[in-house]
Amino acid sequence: MTQKREAIIIGAGLVGSLWAVYLSKAGYNVTIYERRSDIRKAEISAGKSINLALSVRGWTALDAVGVGDEIRKIAIPMYGRMMHDISGKLTYQQYGEDGQAIYSVSRGKVNATMMDIAETHGNATIHYQTECLRVDLQNAIAYLRNTQTGENFEAKADVIFAADGAFSAVRYNSMQKLNRFQYSQNYIADGYREILLPALPDGAYAMDKNALHIWPRGRFMMIALANEDGSFTLTLFMPHEHHEFAFDKLNTKADVDRFFRTIFPDFHDLMPDIADKWDDHPLSNLAIIRCYPWAAGKVGLMGDAAHATVPFYGQGMNAGFEDCRVLNELMLKHNHDWDAIWAEYSPLRKPNGDALQDLSLDNYIEMRDLVADPSFLLRKKIEGKFSKMYPNKWLPLYSQVTFSNIPYSVAYEQGKKQRSIMDQIMAQPDIETNWDSPEVMQAILNECSTFNFQT
Amino acid sequence: MTQKREAIIIGAGLVGSLWAVYLSKAGYNVTIYERRSDIRKAEISAGKSINLALSVRGWTALDAVGVGDEIRKIAIPMYGRMMHDISGKLTYQQYGEDGQAIYSVSRGKVNATMMDIAETHGNATIHYQTECLRVDLQNAIAYLRNTQTGENFEAKADVIFAADGAFSAVRYNSMQKLNRFQYSQNYIADGYREILLPALPDGAYAMDKNALHIWPRGRFMMIALANEDGSFTLTLFMPHEHHEFAFDKLNTKADVDRFFRTIFPDFHDLMPDIADKWDDHPLSNLAIIRCYPWAAGKVGLMGDAAHATVPFYGQGMNAGFEDCRVLNELMLKHNHDWDAIWAEYSPLRKPNGDALQDLSLDNYIEMRDLVADPSFLLRKKIEGKFSKMYPNKWLPLYSQVTFSNIPYSVAYEQGKKQRSIMDQIMAQPDIETNWDSPEVMQAILNECSTFNFQT
Repeated sequence: MTQKREAIIIGAGLVGSLWAVYLSKAGYNVTIYERRSDIRKAEISAGKSINLALSVRGWTALDAVGVGDEIRKIAIPMYGRMMHDISGKLTYQQYGEDGQAIYSVSRGKVNATMMDIAETHGNATIHYQTECLRVDLQNAIAYLRNTQTGENFEAKADVIFAADGAFSAVRYNSMQKLNRFQYSQNYIADGYREILLPALPDGAYAMDKNALHIWPRGRFMMIALANEDGSFTLTLFMPHEHHEFAFDKLNTKADVDRFFRTIFPDFHDLMPDIADKWDDHPLSNLAIIRCYPWAAGKVGLMGDAAHATVPFYGQGMNAGFEDCRVLNELMLKHNHDWDAIWAEYSPLRKPNGDALQDLSLDNYIEMRDLVADPSFLLRKKIEGKFSKMYPNKWLPLYSQVTFSNIPYSVAYEQGKKQRSIMDQIMAQPDIETNWDSPEVMQAILNECSTFNFQT
Repeated sequence: MTQKREAIIIGAGLVGSLWAVYLSKAGYNVTIYERRSDIRKAEISAGKSINLALSVRGWTALDAVGVGDEIRKIAIPMYGRMMHDISGKLTYQQYGEDGQAIYSVSRGKVNATMMDIAETHGNATIHYQTECLRVDLQNAIAYLRNTQTGENFEAKADVIFAADGAFSAVRYNSMQKLNRFQYSQNYIADGYREILLPALPDGAYAMDKNALHIWPRGRFMMIALANEDGSFTLTLFMPHEHHEFAFDKLNTKADVDRFFRTIFPDFHDLMPDIADKWDDHPLSNLAIIRCYPWAAGKVGLMGDAAHATVPFYGQGMNAGFEDCRVLNELMLKHNHDWDAIWAEYSPLRKPNGDALQDLSLDNYIEMRDLVADPSFLLRKKIEGKFSKMYPNKWLPLYSQVTFSNIPYSVAYEQGKKQRSIMDQIMAQPDIETNWDSPEVMQAILNECSTFNFQT
C-alpha cells in the first residue's frame, strides 16, 4: 500500500470546501486552513455576501462528487427576470426553456453545508482562525499563524491549493513578486449596498420568489433574490461618485428616503422604513482581478484567487466550482503529476477566467439598461423563436453561460458572433412587424453555420 | 522663525536625489532612506542599467534647480539614429533640427552625481542599507530596517515621497491594499540582455559615438549607446520564447556565435568573442506598471514607483525628473498644503504616465521594425519638410516627446491625429515621386489647424 498523498487547501470557502471533497475522493489526505472562525458556530457573516445564483456549471461540479442534492435542499429556483419599471409596472422575461432556472442560495448556508460535506464526505480536517502568511512555492510549505494564540507554524504537503478568495494571501505574498507574474486589480466605478426586505407579517414573500427581480435604471440598478425565510436580499449597484445618482449623494435619511421614493417607488411601498435600515450593511467595492499564471511550483490558485469578477452574471461561484471539475479531470489525466497538471491548467483555464470577467462586465450593462429597452426585448424574442425552431443551431449567449458547460471563452466568442448577426437582423426596416416571419428565420439560418454548442 | 518642514524620501535613485534638491531649495529638511549601499563607495551596479538618454524634459527639470551643468559634463550627445541592416549597410536619420540631440549617460554615473548634488546643493542626509518595510500613510511615518544591524526603527515627517522604483515597497506594502487602489503589472513578452563592446585598442570608439545605433530586425532589435570611456553598451531586446529568434533558443556558445554572425554580422566583426561575453550580464524582464491614485494621506509616489515603463522611448528618467518639476509647481501653487497638492497631482499626472507608457510600447515597434521600412522613412521625410516650412503647424511626435515639455498625453493624442493625416498623404498614388510638391504640403496644411505645440 502506498502512502496517501497530502494536500493543503488555503481557505474553507465555497471552492476550498468543494475541492476538498474531490481531493478526498481521489485519495488525498486533506487539511484546510481558514483565516476566519467556523461560520457554523459563530454568528459571523462570511464576508460580503451578494446572494448567489447557482446554475448548470455549479450543479455539474457538485453532482460530479454526489453533493448536489444537499445544496438543492436550500436552493430557490428563479425561472426568469422580473423587471420593475419606475411606475412599478412589471415585465417578465424567462431565462431559458420551460423548467430551466438559476437557483438563489445564501452564501453563508451554502458555505456551511459545503464545510459539513468536506468533513463528512471528504474527511478533510479544517483548522479555523489560521492565517496563511506565505507559501514556499517550490516545496509546498505553508507558513501559518494561529490568530488565537499568535503561534507561527509550518505545514508541508505534496501540493497546495489557494482558494483564499479575491484578496488571496498566497497570490499577494508569494506569487505577485514572481518573475514575469502578470497581475491587475481593477475596481469599477460602482459600489454596492445590500438591503434586507423582511418577510410579510404572515411569513409570506412580498414578491414572486421564483424570479430574479431587477429595477433597471440605465446607469445603475437594484436587484433582489429570495431567501428561504420569506425575506429578500436586495442589492443596489450604483456609481460611488461623479453621477447624478451616486452613493456619495445619499448622506442623510431624507436623501435616502427621497431616492427610493422617487426611483424605486414600488419597493419603497414594500419597505417604507428603508432610510432607517440603510446603514445595516456596508457600502462595498467591486473589482476584477486578473493574473497569470495560476500556478507556480507546487501551488495553484482556484476560484476568486485566480479570477475574481464582478457579480453581474451570477457566475463567480459557478466558475470556482467549474475550476474543481476541470482540475479534477486534469489530475486524473496526468495521474497526480502536478508539474504536468499545472502546466496544462493555467493556459487551459485562463482564457475562460478572462471571458467570464468580460461577460460579467457586459452583463451589468444588459441588466441595468438593456432589459428595459423594447428593441432589446424584441431581439431576445427573435433569438428565442429561432432557437426553438433550430435548437442545435442557436443557443442564446445567456443559456450558453448559464445552462451549459460550454467553456466561457467559447461562449463569449460565439456570443459576439450572434450579436453581430442579430445587429443585421434588427437593422431590417420592418423588423417590428415581421420579426417572426420565415424570411427573418431564414436570414438567421444562413449566418449561423459555425456555432458549436456541445461541451 | 517657523520650524522647518520635514520630508522623507524613500529611495536615493535618480528621482529621489533630484527631488531632494527641489525640496531643500523649498526649505525642507530632507532625509533619504536607500535600500542599497552607497554606489559611490562600493563597486555595486545600481541594478539593471539600460543606458539612459537624457532629453529636454530631463534637462528642464535639472536646470530648474541649477544642476544640469553637472550632468552635461558626463553626457554624450546623439543627434540621430544609425540603422544597421543585415548586410551592415548604415542609414542615418536625424532626430530633430540641426543641433538637437538626446544625451547618452551612464545610470551609475548620473546617480552618483545626483547623490552628490542632493547632499551638497540639497543638504539632504542619505541613510544607506536602510529598507522601507511600510509606511503609515495618514501619519507620514516610515517603518524602516537597517539591513546591516537588523535594527527596526521609525521615522516621522510632514510628508513622505516614495521614489523607490518599479518594485516600490511603499506601493506594494502600503498602497496596493487600499480601498479601490487600481494596480497592474504587465510584463511584455520580450526580455533584454546587455553587452559591453569595449573601446578599440587605442581607446577610440568602434562606431560613431554621436548616434544611437539600432539593428532593427522586425520582431526584435539591438541598440547601442556610447559610454564616456570609448566603449558602447549594447542591449538586445527579443522575445523570451515562442519565436524563431528568442532568448530560449540561445543555449550554447555555438548558438550565440551563429546568431550574432548571421543576424548582426557587422557587430560580430567588431566583437567576435561575443559568445564568451554573453553571460556577463543577466537576462532581464520588461514591465509596464500602472496604478492609481499616486498619493494617499501624506505619501506620494514618484517616478517608476508611479509609472514604470518599458525603455523604448528613452523617457523613463525624463518622466521621473518631470514629476519633480511638476510637483514643485504644485507645491508652490498650494503653499505646501499636501492635501491640496496630492489632490491635484494624481489626476494631473496620471494621464501623462499612461501616455508615456503607450508611447513607449508603440516606439518599440517603430525602432525594431518601422525604421527599416522605406515607406516609414519617406513619411518622416515628408513630415520633416512640412515641419520646416510651417514650424508652428507641425512638430513631429518624436520631437514633441523628446524636444519639448508638451505633456505626454497631449503629445500622444496629437501624434495619433498626425498619423491619421499622414496615412492619407501616404495613400496618394504618386507620393514617392511628388512627396515634396506644393500640393502635398498644402494637403497637410489643410488638415493640421488644431494642433498646439506650446507647453
